[in-house]
Amino acid sequence: MNTVTRPTGRLVLVPNTLDLGAQPQPLDELLPSAALRRAAGLRHWVVESAKVARGFLKRVDGVTPLVKPLQQMTLQELPRARKGSGEQVGAAVWESLLAPALAGQDVGLLSDAGLPAVADPGAGLVAAAHRLGVAVEVLCGGSSLTLALAASGLNGQRFAFEGYLPQATAERDARVRELEQRSRREHQTQLVIETPYRNEALLQALARQLHPETRLAVAWGLTSPGGGCRSQPVAAWRRELSAPGRAPMTDTLPAVFLWLAD
Amino acid sequence: MNTVTRPTGRLVLVPNTLDLGAQPQPLDELLPSAALRRAAGLRHWVVESAKVARGFLKRVDGVTPLVKPLQQMTLQELPRARKGSGEQVGAAVWESLLAPALAGQDVGLLSDAGLPAVADPGAGLVAAAHRLGVAVEVLCGGSSLTLALAASGLNGQRFAFEGYLPQATAERDARVRELEQRSRREHQTQLVIETPYRNEALLQALARQLHPETRLAVAWGLTSPGGGCRSQPVAAWRRELSAPGRAPMTDTLPAVFLWLAD
Repeated sequence: MNTVTRPTGRLVLVPNTLDLGAQPQPLDELLPSAALRRAAGLRHWVVESAKVARGFLKRVDGVTPLVKPLQQMTLQELPRARKGSGEQVGAAVWESLLAPALAGQDVGLLSDAGLPAVADPGAGLVAAAHRLGVAVEVLCGGSSLTLALAASGLNGQRFAFEGYLPQATAERDARVRELEQRSRREHQTQLVIETPYRNEALLQALARQLHPETRLAVAWGLTSPGGGCRSQPVAAWRRELSAPGRAPMTDTLPAVFLWLAD
Repeated sequence: MNTVTRPTGRLVLVPNTLDLGAQPQPLDELLPSAALRRAAGLRHWVVESAKVARGFLKRVDGVTPLVKPLQQMTLQELPRARKGSGEQVGAAVWESLLAPALAGQDVGLLSDAGLPAVADPGAGLVAAAHRLGVAVEVLCGGSSLTLALAASGLNGQRFAFEGYLPQATAERDARVRELEQRSRREHQTQLVIETPYRNEALLQALARQLHPETRLAVAWGLTSPGGGCRSQPVAAWRRELSAPGRAPMTDTLPAVFLWLAD
């Protein structure tokens, strides 16, 4: 780096709510007021999707007036690397998204739900900020992963988030068994997510593949009406799921699946 | 289970702030108002430590009046199992702590910072609630682990939290190298925590043990004044830490250490 002085603009990681797909609750009930005030003061945004971000900013405006009208803000979407394509986003792209921060103005980073860059895009931009000497500020907000972990009653002193499991059945089942072995060896809770419409299929597959005594939990729509968490041994899940349509979660709310082999 | 009807009392997981050891900020700026209101209405508590819990409830009372005076609440501490002792807390202990919920009244669970049962005690109580059919409700709040992960710019699509590393040097260094290999193989960010007064010693050890190109981050006191996050390759850390006293974090604020081998 050749910059002599550190840029004075910051990259501000703004938490979104967790009510994606659920009935929206008043925003000031869901996020700390310090985070809302800080978000309302930002003029430059990099976001997962512009549509969701505009909806979020309108909700913020209803609670704490935005520093300028939405139309006058800069709002840019994160580049999408195709999944598994191995494509790298070039340094110039990140630098251009961070241009306001390099010029001294704060930039907000927002994803469609929860924390940016956690089970969501944004890490590339945060990494670029660190490389360019842009200070990274994080506002307090919830992540569905740690909330699900707390609600599951499984081991919160050691856990791993795997993202999505492979889609092909044989590959998926092999990975589930591998992660169950690791869970038993290291007493490590395993967490995965799935696209909501496949929630029930995944729960069925986990109940089939895991050992009857392994504890398996699903947490869905946490912090929203209609959300919940069920946690019980696999043997109990098998009895419960023996008829179709018995899964406790819906196919529209995002869910987190967790297991621990003792 | 022989219960025919499900208990109507719930176990409510209440997030604490992340300002343990930092200058306290106004509570209503740090936690969502829905969580504060729900917490203010609870009469029965199970907590990590009574002293911290009383301080928290006094702060809540300053924002949203408590449903009854603190002295008239029941406030019980979680049982402490000695570390590594293998002791199990008996089912009767959990059942007694959950007695109000079994009798139809909500019970709050609170730890000294952040989310209960995530890098903090409480999972045993939550597991017992699931076994006894007590519904578990989680209020939206931040965890220092996912906030640190977001702030680090490291991979947030796949990560593992290891808790504390072993204290003996040789054992610790071996575990660090093992977790670095896993990080490289699975593109999995590794997270650990340490007792604050050992923060600098751990950062020095990680900078010595990890590969020069591995990215290493430390996030300390997030969401508090004086908090921050630094993330850079190990080679850069080695240069920075070549003189003592150069570590960016303090020895009083809780810190999270993260690394990713690409």
